[in-house]
Amino acid sequence: MPEVIFYPDNIKIEVVEGENLLRAAMIAEVHINASCGGDGTCGKCRVIVETGEVEVLGRGKLTEAEIERGYHLACLTNVQGDVEVRVPVESQMGDSKILERERQIPAWGHFLSAPDVEVMATAWKHLSPTRKMFMKLPPPTIEDNLSDLERLRRELSRQISLKEVVIDPAVLKNLAVNLREKDWQITLTFLDTDDGTYLIQVEPGNATKKNYALVVDVGTTTVIAQLVDLSEGKVTAKASNYNAQISYGEDVITRIIFAGREGGLLKLQSAAVTTINNLLSELVRKAQIELQDISYMVAAGNTTMTHLLLGLDPKYIREDPYIPTISSVPLLKARDLGISLLESVYLYCFPGVASYVGGDITAGILGSGVFQSDKLTLYIDIGTNGELVLGNRDWLVSCSCSAGPAFEGGGIRNGVRATRGAIEQVRISRETLEPMILTIGQSKPGGICGSGLIDVVAELFLSGIINQKGKFNTELKTPRIRMGENGAEYVLVWAEEAGIGRDITISEVDLDNLIRAKAAIYAGITILTESVDVKIPDIERIIIAGAFGNYIEIDKAMIIGLLPEADSERFIFIGNGSLMGTRAVALSRALQKEAEKIARKMTYLELSVNPAFMDRYISALFLPHTNMDAFPKVMGMIREHRA
Amino acid sequence: MPEVIFYPDNIKIEVVEGENLLRAAMIAEVHINASCGGDGTCGKCRVIVETGEVEVLGRGKLTEAEIERGYHLACLTNVQGDVEVRVPVESQMGDSKILERERQIPAWGHFLSAPDVEVMATAWKHLSPTRKMFMKLPPPTIEDNLSDLERLRRELSRQISLKEVVIDPAVLKNLAVNLREKDWQITLTFLDTDDGTYLIQVEPGNATKKNYALVVDVGTTTVIAQLVDLSEGKVTAKASNYNAQISYGEDVITRIIFAGREGGLLKLQSAAVTTINNLLSELVRKAQIELQDISYMVAAGNTTMTHLLLGLDPKYIREDPYIPTISSVPLLKARDLGISLLESVYLYCFPGVASYVGGDITAGILGSGVFQSDKLTLYIDIGTNGELVLGNRDWLVSCSCSAGPAFEGGGIRNGVRATRGAIEQVRISRETLEPMILTIGQSKPGGICGSGLIDVVAELFLSGIINQKGKFNTELKTPRIRMGENGAEYVLVWAEEAGIGRDITISEVDLDNLIRAKAAIYAGITILTESVDVKIPDIERIIIAGAFGNYIEIDKAMIIGLLPEADSERFIFIGNGSLMGTRAVALSRALQKEAEKIARKMTYLELSVNPAFMDRYISALFLPHTNMDAFPKVMGMIREHRA
Repeated sequence: MPEVIFYPDNIKIEVVEGENLLRAAMIAEVHINASCGGDGTCGKCRVIVETGEVEVLGRGKLTEAEIERGYHLACLTNVQGDVEVRVPVESQMGDSKILERERQIPAWGHFLSAPDVEVMATAWKHLSPTRKMFMKLPPPTIEDNLSDLERLRRELSRQISLKEVVIDPAVLKNLAVNLREKDWQITLTFLDTDDGTYLIQVEPGNATKKNYALVVDVGTTTVIAQLVDLSEGKVTAKASNYNAQISYGEDVITRIIFAGREGGLLKLQSAAVTTINNLLSELVRKAQIELQDISYMVAAGNTTMTHLLLGLDPKYIREDPYIPTISSVPLLKARDLGISLLESVYLYCFPGVASYVGGDITAGILGSGVFQSDKLTLYIDIGTNGELVLGNRDWLVSCSCSAGPAFEGGGIRNGVRATRGAIEQVRISRETLEPMILTIGQSKPGGICGSGLIDVVAELFLSGIINQKGKFNTELKTPRIRMGENGAEYVLVWAEEAGIGRDITISEVDLDNLIRAKAAIYAGITILTESVDVKIPDIERIIIAGAFGNYIEIDKAMIIGLLPEADSERFIFIGNGSLMGTRAVALSRALQKEAEKIARKMTYLELSVNPAFMDRYISALFLPHTNMDAFPKVMGMIREHRA
Repeated sequence: MPEVIFYPDNIKIEVVEGENLLRAAMIAEVHINASCGGDGTCGKCRVIVETGEVEVLGRGKLTEAEIERGYHLACLTNVQGDVEVRVPVESQMGDSKILERERQIPAWGHFLSAPDVEVMATAWKHLSPTRKMFMKLPPPTIEDNLSDLERLRRELSRQISLKEVVIDPAVLKNLAVNLREKDWQITLTFLDTDDGTYLIQVEPGNATKKNYALVVDVGTTTVIAQLVDLSEGKVTAKASNYNAQISYGEDVITRIIFAGREGGLLKLQSAAVTTINNLLSELVRKAQIELQDISYMVAAGNTTMTHLLLGLDPKYIREDPYIPTISSVPLLKARDLGISLLESVYLYCFPGVASYVGGDITAGILGSGVFQSDKLTLYIDIGTNGELVLGNRDWLVSCSCSAGPAFEGGGIRNGVRATRGAIEQVRISRETLEPMILTIGQSKPGGICGSGLIDVVAELFLSGIINQKGKFNTELKTPRIRMGENGAEYVLVWAEEAGIGRDITISEVDLDNLIRAKAAIYAGITILTESVDVKIPDIERIIIAGAFGNYIEIDKAMIIGLLPEADSERFIFIGNGSLMGTRAVALSRALQKEAEKIARKMTYLELSVNPAFMDRYISALFLPHTNMDAFPKVMGMIREHRA
């Protein structure tokens, strides 16, 4: 991996080839002025590339003379090899003193890039639930005049000794034509289930190589779909989009309420299906395959998403004692839900554990191999709810923390989802209290997304702008701290640099919401560990799942007390764990059975009725935590920064 | 049964109570003038009721004086008990001589009325494929927080030791609400199949008594449906209507051709489904039940009708080597075909034997118990095709004779289907050569239906108007015999008595068609018996199935050589055998298995490639047959009549 050295700080960092220089500086904690989010318009992130190869995306307002002297805009420069970069004083925004801190905790743990994590579970055989087989039948005569189907049954028995096979009615539709089209040479698609073998498709000729599965993670916000080549065992196309249900409510509770309205359930179901169908079209186009090449579908979602996809009223999910209609889902025909796959294609829906620990979590535990590991693992999926699983191959215990939508930008005045223009990384200069921001897509900032919010809280705290309770130190001399509509606030982006025509701020009310959200998750972790009588240092592995998780910087998350303090080596970012699980069961029927076992064996703790939870929650309403002994490194950092 | 004595002939006949006097005379071979078909307008069928009770439907043009003397119009008079009736001379249309013939062969064999024949198969246990069961579940709590479905599964295992049950996805839809509506008291509907037990419905409260099956005979012309009460084991409502496919073609061949046209198959499929759905609505209304009370559906039809109902292209049924797509049909969801039953209701379709011996015949063999009888039985179903089965409990051999649509009125100038106004019975006076006719619904004659055609041919032959080859004796002195557009013809009804504004005639061309049709069937019977080396007198039972069969008079059918000559005691009329079979499998899963066995074990003879068939056919192109030794009684009758 290329190494970037930042002068005059002399801070070294390894980055992936093609990494953006501004992002590299951000991760290295090297402060560079950057107020436009990285789109090249503010022209403040000027750096001098002294040696090494870079890719120049643009020059912005740099003069010819500056260009000649090696000036680049960091946000428009990508690393192509080892690079030495000097940050001129003006780009540090008048910092009189050079920053001399180093990361006590690396920002990232093991970040697994997509090819590594198609499936993390190990020791499974690639044997998909659906398989294709080529066969020749003897043509009929007046003497051998069995019907087409009986002839096929006879040959299945004769040629491959398959006597018990359930014929899917959809197979009959064009059976006569399909058998005759290539002179009684056909490709059969079988689906193996616990209830027996199903014949689900008969195609003319040899189509054995064309066997794909559609796998879908049905998220409350985003639906992600992939096409898995079942013969090659790999992903051939990817697509994602917002869950169209969003127009009926942002979170699961709002949708459950909407589902109770006249026609509401149907609208939500159709919205999910429409989203999936659009992704399906996109995948088929991208992969240049035919719809009939898809023989299987796997979906995972939280319990409410699963209910809505299946058209089941989720009403009782939010009424004490919180009982879903279904946890383990029978094999269904995708078409019966309105999904535009062939009539005979079945859908496997991941089983959930409880109303608030759904199939997406089961899928994550499966795909990430937690269920088969000796290592005591904490699996964290942070979204609107924080779902937590603690365990190993022998036991699994789970809970869901009503974190609220803060980390998805909900309830935060300038909170936004992780879309283009969302501020995803933030640094605040300890000296000038000026911010450095980076946005998704490096475009004009429009708000702050989850990872940016974690950064903001951590940086406000480290720079002494807020105290342990999240209250502002209004004594500090900077125009960025002021009284706003919701009390004290910090201006992260001035209106003229923002893409929304007004200041982007973070207020005490926002901070309160964020602290409550992080406290809920940390309290959940505490309850889980206590329930099985282990200590946080006993946790050998912490798996962070969810697209959002990928952008969390561990150290910042620890500083605010969202994640427990632990050695960075123990962290693994797996991206979308749910999708990993869907791939796993598309490729292996044995893993599908494991998924059912996981859901059955996982213990669920209902925190809302747990008397200890409120106590642990209140203890966590501080930065990083009331019990500072649990955060020795963080406390060291704070002391150093405050010094 | 009431006895009717006709004077002056002194002919006695037993009839069912309520029998019409004109029909009684017809069966008794007592000639009464009747040219209007029985609707009371011609006023010619005047009789005197001397003793006994009758129901008077009308008086027509009878004068007060006549009424006082006991005059009745036979067609408007029904028998209510033993009756003595005098036929005045004028009503015999100037017959100078009293008819002195008696029936050598009774017109009817064993006519089984509907209640007797719900199912003729014996020794089966009433154990329907679907059954209902009442159950109470313990309500959930925070501690016992299984999902609704898992709770149900657990209780199935605990309370009735049912561990392996396939949950139909449709059950999930309102499961949450259904469980809670009557405080966790529910009625479960199970479907037992060879692949296991399916849970197909969960209703609130106790609905165990409400369990019905929809059974349907899908005929090419008529679709007949019944509602079977599965707990009581009896039919609760009946309905029938034309198959709406008729608008796309009258017979199976025309429909197969239409199915090959753009969109044709779909139109035919929809037409069948629409017909069934309309009948379903009618049945539900008549029986005053709810749609959800119907838990099962059974259908039987010929192979083409089955294919069209299932949406399968019947193309190869009419192409050498005549291979249907399907003979044994997997259990299907009725809703998948468009039938308006609950989503979870399965349809059992009777298995066929070959392209021209379909599920309706299998159903008939099942329902009539032929498959379990020691008696050598000939089963005859005459429609457009004549399907024949010969056999007993040990073996069954079948064939189909392309009789053409003559007996359904097709290809006959004045041929009509058996609807209101169709002439269904005919007598011709040996002396005057004047006809006596009776129409369906006793309304103005509009044409001649199958049974009427058989009568016409037999009567023309017996009265010497036509010879053995079906050619007219134009020497006879009656205005009714004349030269028409199609050569010689006989006028059965004059235009002024007809409901269609023109004479109703039967021509040599018509006769030719009828003789070819009967020859095909008789040749089929011959081939069947020869194939297993039995003689016609060895046949112990002849079962006539099909609504049409009910109106055939055996003796007339023997006279024209359509049926083999046999003792009338050997004949059994069972009405709709196909429907009888559908009721059988709705009531007994064991019989459903028998149906599959029957279809598998039945041998099919393809007559179109049978070298002996043409020879037997040509021999049968005479009245009654070239081989007169096979028809000794008929020959005796002919000699007597001609004398």
